[in-house]
Amino acid sequence: MFKIENRGGMVLISNADKLKSWNDGFIKQSILDFLNSSIEKGRDYVKPEDRIATFDNDGTLWVEKPMPVQLNFVFRVFAKTVQNNPSLLDKQPYKAILKRDETFFKMAIEQNPEAIMALEDAMAREWSGKTPDEFEAEVKEFFAKVKPEKFAKNFTELVYKPMLELFDLLKTYEYRVFVCSGGGRDFMRIISEETWGIFKENVIGSAPNYEYNNGTLKRLDTILGGLALGPGKVEHIFSQTGRLPVFAGGNSDIDVEMLESAKFRLLINHDDDEREYYYENGAEKILTIAKEKNYTIVSMKNDWNEIFLK
Amino acid sequence: MFKIENRGGMVLISNADKLKSWNDGFIKQSILDFLNSSIEKGRDYVKPEDRIATFDNDGTLWVEKPMPVQLNFVFRVFAKTVQNNPSLLDKQPYKAILKRDETFFKMAIEQNPEAIMALEDAMAREWSGKTPDEFEAEVKEFFAKVKPEKFAKNFTELVYKPMLELFDLLKTYEYRVFVCSGGGRDFMRIISEETWGIFKENVIGSAPNYEYNNGTLKRLDTILGGLALGPGKVEHIFSQTGRLPVFAGGNSDIDVEMLESAKFRLLINHDDDEREYYYENGAEKILTIAKEKNYTIVSMKNDWNEIFLK
Repeated sequence: MFKIENRGGMVLISNADKLKSWNDGFIKQSILDFLNSSIEKGRDYVKPEDRIATFDNDGTLWVEKPMPVQLNFVFRVFAKTVQNNPSLLDKQPYKAILKRDETFFKMAIEQNPEAIMALEDAMAREWSGKTPDEFEAEVKEFFAKVKPEKFAKNFTELVYKPMLELFDLLKTYEYRVFVCSGGGRDFMRIISEETWGIFKENVIGSAPNYEYNNGTLKRLDTILGGLALGPGKVEHIFSQTGRLPVFAGGNSDIDVEMLESAKFRLLINHDDDEREYYYENGAEKILTIAKEKNYTIVSMKNDWNEIFLK
Repeated sequence: MFKIENRGGMVLISNADKLKSWNDGFIKQSILDFLNSSIEKGRDYVKPEDRIATFDNDGTLWVEKPMPVQLNFVFRVFAKTVQNNPSLLDKQPYKAILKRDETFFKMAIEQNPEAIMALEDAMAREWSGKTPDEFEAEVKEFFAKVKPEKFAKNFTELVYKPMLELFDLLKTYEYRVFVCSGGGRDFMRIISEETWGIFKENVIGSAPNYEYNNGTLKRLDTILGGLALGPGKVEHIFSQTGRLPVFAGGNSDIDVEMLESAKFRLLINHDDDEREYYYENGAEKILTIAKEKNYTIVSMKNDWNEIFLK
C-alpha cells in the first residue's frame, strides 16, 4: 500500500492487487520491492525523470510461435509478391517461402546476418514508396484475418495479461513505459494503443527512413540507424528517450544488452507447454546470464495464474 | 472555463488565465477557440491519442540572435579545437571562426548546403567516440558561462514565458508537447526538462548515430536519418511519434513543412526590437505563406505582455 487514489471517494489501492494475474511469491515481491525502493529517498531512489521502463515485444508481451508475428505478416505478403513477379522465384526469401524451407525461416528467426539482409532487401522492395496509410491497411488486414493454429485467436488477443498489469503498475509509480522490439516499429505502432495502451511514440523498433514531399510521407528503402537487435536495442532506446532504461523486460538472446543496460532485469521464461509453449531455443545465452547474475526470472507456469488477455 | 482541477479544494480554473503573458485579443482567442473545439465532439474534434503539438526551438522558444544557440556552442568548441590542431587552419568552419568570416556564419545560419556539410564534418570529427556524459559536461559548461551581449543573462533564462504558458495550456487539453528543432537533439535534451518542463523523449532534432559496446554508448560520425530541417522536421516528427502534429509553432523558413503538416499553425513574428529583436530575414518565405494561408501570426510586440521567463 503506498498510494491514495481519488476514485469518487478516497480509496486505498494496494499495489500488490494490481498484479492480480501474478501468483504471490518471490518474483511478484521482487518487482514490488524494487518499485517501492525506487520511489523512496535512499540508496535505490530513481528520480522521476529517469523512470524509464522498456520491454521487448515478441515472446515478452505476446506469443512469438510459430514465428515472430511480424515475420508471419511479412512472409504472407512476400508469398503474394512472388506469385505476381516470378522473376523473384530464385531469390531469398521468396524461394524459402514457396518451398517451405524451414532452414531459412530458422535462420531468419535466429537473426542470421545473411537471412536478415535478404529480408531487409525484400522489405525495402515491398514497401518503399508506400505511405503510412497504405502500410497500415495491409497490417490491419493481417491482424483481422490471421490466427495461430494452437489458439484460434487473433494475435492481439494473445497478449500476456500479467504484462499489461505490470505496465499499469509501473505507471502508478510514474514510470514511462516503452516497447522496444527487434521487429518493425511501424508495424507495432498500428496496434500498440488499442492492444497495450501504449502511445505510438512509446514504441521503439527497427524502422525505415521516410521522405516528406509535397505533403506526403513515403517510406524509403533504407533503415533508420540500424536494426533494433542486441546492442541496437540500447542504441534505439537511447535515441528515442535520451536515457537507458531503469526497468527492462525481455525473453530472448537479442534482449541481453537491453537488460544489461537496466537496473531491474525481468526475464520471461517460456516453460508452460500446456497454456502457451515450452522452449529455450533462442534464449540459451540469456538464461545462462540471468541465472549467473540473478535476473528476476518469471516462470510463466508458476508465476502467472492467467496468461492471456482474453 | 472548462476544467475543474482539484487543488486542495475544488478550484475552477479559467483556461484564458493560463495565458497570462498573452494580451487579450484575436491571437489568444484563436488559440483557445481551436483547443476548445478540438476536445468537443464535432467537426473539429481531435481524438486524444492524436493530440500532438510540436514546436521549433531557436526563435520560437528562446532567443536565436546573434546566432542559434547550438551554433554558438559549436563555434566556441571549434575555436579551441583549431588552436590545438593547426592543420585544420585552412578548413571550414575553423577558418571562418578564426578570421571572423561573417559570410560563412551567415551561410551556416541560413542552412547553405556547403556550410552545413562543413559543419557536420567538423561535428563528427569533434564528438565521434564521445559518450553522452562527456558531451553533457561540455554543454553544461557552455550554458553556465555564455550570455548573449544584449541581455547579460544565460540562454536558459531567455526562454519566452508565453510559450511555456502555452505548453501548460496544451497539456491541460491533453496534448503531448514535443520540441522539434533543426539543431541538435542531444544538445537540447540536456536543458529541456529543467528549462521547458519537457521530457528528453519529447525532444526531436538532428542527431548522431550511437554505438553501444561493452556497456558504453558512444557517438558515431554519422547522422541519424538526415537533418531535421524543412521536410526533415516532418520526417523526424513522424519517426519519433508515429503521427503528424495537430498544433505546430515555428518562426522561420525551415519550419514551413512542419507548420503545413499541422491543423493549427502558430508563427512567432520577431517584431519587438526593444524587448527582443526585430528581424524578418530567414523568415521571408514563411511570413508570405502565413499571410496567404491565415496562419495565426503572433506579434511579439503586441500579443505578449511579457517576453522572458526571468
